[in-house]
Amino acid sequence: MTKEKKNKPSKELPLGFVDRQEKELLVRDFIISNIKEVMIKYGFQYLETPSFEYSDSIGKFLPDKERPDEGVFSFKDENKWLSLRYDLTAPLARYVAKNYLEIPKPFKRYQLGTVWRNEKPGPGRFREFLQFDADYVGTKSLQADAELCVMISEILEKCGLKKKEYIIKISSRKITEALFNKINLIEEQQKLIVLRALDKIDRLGWNGVKQLLGEGRKDKSGDFTKGANLNLQNINTIETELKKKSPETKDLIEILKIFKDYNFDNYEFDPSIIRGLEYYTGTVFEVNLRFDVKNNKEQVIQFGSIGGGGRYDNLVNNFGNYDAPATGISIGLDRLVYALMQKKEFKIKQSKPIVICVFDKNSMKEYISLQTFLRQAGISTEIYPGESKLKKQMEYANKIKSPAVILYGEDEIKSGKPTVRNLTSGKERSIEVKELVNEIKKII
Amino acid sequence: MTKEKKNKPSKELPLGFVDRQEKELLVRDFIISNIKEVMIKYGFQYLETPSFEYSDSIGKFLPDKERPDEGVFSFKDENKWLSLRYDLTAPLARYVAKNYLEIPKPFKRYQLGTVWRNEKPGPGRFREFLQFDADYVGTKSLQADAELCVMISEILEKCGLKKKEYIIKISSRKITEALFNKINLIEEQQKLIVLRALDKIDRLGWNGVKQLLGEGRKDKSGDFTKGANLNLQNINTIETELKKKSPETKDLIEILKIFKDYNFDNYEFDPSIIRGLEYYTGTVFEVNLRFDVKNNKEQVIQFGSIGGGGRYDNLVNNFGNYDAPATGISIGLDRLVYALMQKKEFKIKQSKPIVICVFDKNSMKEYISLQTFLRQAGISTEIYPGESKLKKQMEYANKIKSPAVILYGEDEIKSGKPTVRNLTSGKERSIEVKELVNEIKKII
Repeated sequence: MTKEKKNKPSKELPLGFVDRQEKELLVRDFIISNIKEVMIKYGFQYLETPSFEYSDSIGKFLPDKERPDEGVFSFKDENKWLSLRYDLTAPLARYVAKNYLEIPKPFKRYQLGTVWRNEKPGPGRFREFLQFDADYVGTKSLQADAELCVMISEILEKCGLKKKEYIIKISSRKITEALFNKINLIEEQQKLIVLRALDKIDRLGWNGVKQLLGEGRKDKSGDFTKGANLNLQNINTIETELKKKSPETKDLIEILKIFKDYNFDNYEFDPSIIRGLEYYTGTVFEVNLRFDVKNNKEQVIQFGSIGGGGRYDNLVNNFGNYDAPATGISIGLDRLVYALMQKKEFKIKQSKPIVICVFDKNSMKEYISLQTFLRQAGISTEIYPGESKLKKQMEYANKIKSPAVILYGEDEIKSGKPTVRNLTSGKERSIEVKELVNEIKKII
Repeated sequence: MTKEKKNKPSKELPLGFVDRQEKELLVRDFIISNIKEVMIKYGFQYLETPSFEYSDSIGKFLPDKERPDEGVFSFKDENKWLSLRYDLTAPLARYVAKNYLEIPKPFKRYQLGTVWRNEKPGPGRFREFLQFDADYVGTKSLQADAELCVMISEILEKCGLKKKEYIIKISSRKITEALFNKINLIEEQQKLIVLRALDKIDRLGWNGVKQLLGEGRKDKSGDFTKGANLNLQNINTIETELKKKSPETKDLIEILKIFKDYNFDNYEFDPSIIRGLEYYTGTVFEVNLRFDVKNNKEQVIQFGSIGGGGRYDNLVNNFGNYDAPATGISIGLDRLVYALMQKKEFKIKQSKPIVICVFDKNSMKEYISLQTFLRQAGISTEIYPGESKLKKQMEYANKIKSPAVILYGEDEIKSGKPTVRNLTSGKERSIEVKELVNEIKKII
C-alpha cells in the first residue's frame, strides 16, 4: 500500500510517549468523573494552571546554573527560561504566592493536568503523565492530612475497588528528622542521600538500602551507586527505628485518632514510606494496590503506588514570607487506569455505532432520516462513511465492532421495513421503522 | 504579609499563559461532556496522541533547516528534535500512517487536547489552547464534510445556543483553485500569499485585502506588508468571483444537497472563507457566533470563529503513499467557553460546600459524623479546615460563597439539634439532625 518516498518524516513517536486508545480513555474518563465528584463533595474548588511556568518559579533553576534542571523540558523565551511543569504542586505554590491576598484561607483546590519529566525513557517509563491533585494550603490542621487519606479511599471504592484491594501507607518526615538528630546527621545534602536510599526499600529491600546507607551498592548491571557513608551503628539505628510497628511522633498519633473518628481503618503505619520529593515536612502517605498487576507479557509486576502525598509547610515560602503551610495528594491517573483495566469485574461500555449500509447514493435521504431517528433515540449510529461495495461495508462494521448493521435497500425502503443484522449472532430481522429503536436496544 | 527575600523566583506567569478558575472550568466540562456525547452518537471513536511529536512528523522541520519552525515549542533530544503539537490534525496524520494496516477504513476519531503555539503573545493571544477535533480519514464522501457541519450545529444547540445565535459559513478551496487557473497564477508561494490576504477579509474588509493582493498595505502603525503584486484586472476578477452568492463548484453543490436531506439550513455559502492552514484541498467551513461578545472592558469585540475545518486529502501522504483522503473539524474550546459565559441564560451550578464550624477540637468526632452524614446525602460539606476563631471561620465561609454554615457547639450536640445559618438570608434555624438534609437542600 505504501510507496517509498525520499525524506519522509518519521511515523514513530519519540521514546516515552504513547498513543492512547478508546478503551483506556473511557476508563480514564470514568475515574476522572468519580474523582471530581468526590473532591467537590469534600469541598475542594477547581483550578487550572498552565503547562508552562517560568523555570525558576517551579524551583528548577538555581541562580548559579546556566540552564534549568535536566529533568524538565525547558525553552528559552526572550532571555527567560520556561519549563513544562513536572508536577501540579510547584505551580500551585506559585499560584498561591501570586494570588495570596485574594484566595480564601485556608485554600482548598483540585486540579487535573498533564505533567512532564525529561528523563531517560525506558520500557514502561513515560515522559508525560496525567495527574489529579487535591491540596489544602494555609492550614496546619492534621484533620486536613487525615481527610486526604479518607478521600482517596472513598474515590477508589467509588471506582469499584474493595477495601482489601488497596491500602494507605502512612508515615511522617518527623520520624526521619528525629532519626537524623539522633545519629547527629546535620548536612542537608547527606540527609537527601539518606532519604533517597530509604525511598528504595520497596525495590531493594533492607539489604540493598543498608549498602546505600553505607559505602554504596553495585547493581546487577555492575553500576556502582555511591552511598551515604554512615557507620554501621547509625545504619542499625535507622533500621531499628524504621521497623517500628506503631508511631511515636505527635502528628501521626493525632492523625490515627482522627482516622478512628472517621471509622477509617484501611491504613498501615509504615515508617519506611519516604516519598521521593524533597519538600515534605510532615505527614507522608502513599496509596498501594493489593491485587496483582501484570505487564504486557502477562508477568505479575511490582507495581508501586498509584498516588500519595503529604505535608509541605515551606514550599510557598520560596516566593516570600507567606503563611501557607500545606498538605496535598497526587493521584497518578495513567497508573490507576492501567491497574483497573486488569480487573475482570471492571467493565466500561464502549458505544460502537450501528452502521447503516449504503446501497444507492440516491437513497441517501432515506438513510439520513433513519440515522436521525436512531440518533434522536440516543443510539450511536452512522451511515457507512465511504463509497464502497456492500462487502467492504460489512468488513468495516465488523472491524469497528459494530453491534449491528441496517440494510435498507430499495425493497426495504418501499415496504418501510429495514433489515437489522445482529453482527454477534449473525441473525437478520426485518422490522418496522417504529419498532427499530426497541429492537436495537435489545442488541446493544 | 510578605517580607522581601533575595533571589526570589517569579510569581508571575510567562506571557500568553493563564490560570483558569472554577466557573470557567465547570462551563468547559459541561461543553466537553456535550461534545463527547454528540461525537459518540455520530460514531466517532476516542483517541489520544501525546503532546510531543518528532518535529518532522508534524511538518515543522524542513530538511534544509537547522531548527524546527519558530511557531512551535521545540526541544532537542539526543540529536532529534521534538515539538509540542500545534494542532491535533498533524498528529492524527502521523497516527494514521503509523497504524495504517490496523485502523478501520474509513477511520473516524475524536480527540480532546492542548495545543501550543510559540508565537509572540499579546493581549488575548494565548500560547496554549484546548481543542476538540473530529475527523474522517480514508473517505472522499462529501457526506462526511456535510455531517461535520450538522454535528457542530447539534453540539452548539446542546450547549444552549439558539439557531439564530450561530452560523456555519462554508466554501471550498476548489473555488480559489479555479480562480488561480482563471488568472493564470501558478506559483505555489504566490498562491499562499493570495490565500493569506483573502483570509483577512473579516478584519480588513475588501479594500484592505485588495491592497494586499496588489502592491501591499500600510497598517495604522505604519508597518508595511508586501502584497501579492497581482494586476488590477486580476484583483477585480477575484473580488467578483468571491462575492458570488451561490456556489458553482461540484463539491459544494453536492454538500448543499446533503444539508437539505438533513433538514439543515443554518449555513451560509461564503466564498471569502479561506481558513489559514495550507493543507486544505476542498471544503472549508467555519463556525461563527452571532451574538455580541465583549472583552473585559465591556467593549463588543470582533470575536471571529469558534472553530472550523475542511477537507485535506493529501496530508497523510507526507508519510508515504497512503489512500487517506480526509476531512475534519476543530473546535476552539477556550473561545467557545469565553463566549458562552457571557450569555445571561447560561448558568452552571457551582456546588460550594456547607461549612461545619469548629467550636472545640474535642468535639471533632461529632463534626465528622455530621459531615459524613451530609456527604453521604451528596451534599458538598467540610469541617472548617483550619484552627481559627469563629469570626475567621465565618469570614472563610463567606469568602468561599458557602450557602450555609452549621453551628454545632456543646449545647447543640447535647440536644442533637445543630443550628443552620443561611448565609444568603442570614437566618438561623435549629434543626434535628435527621431533618438536616432536607433543610440544606432547600438552601443550596
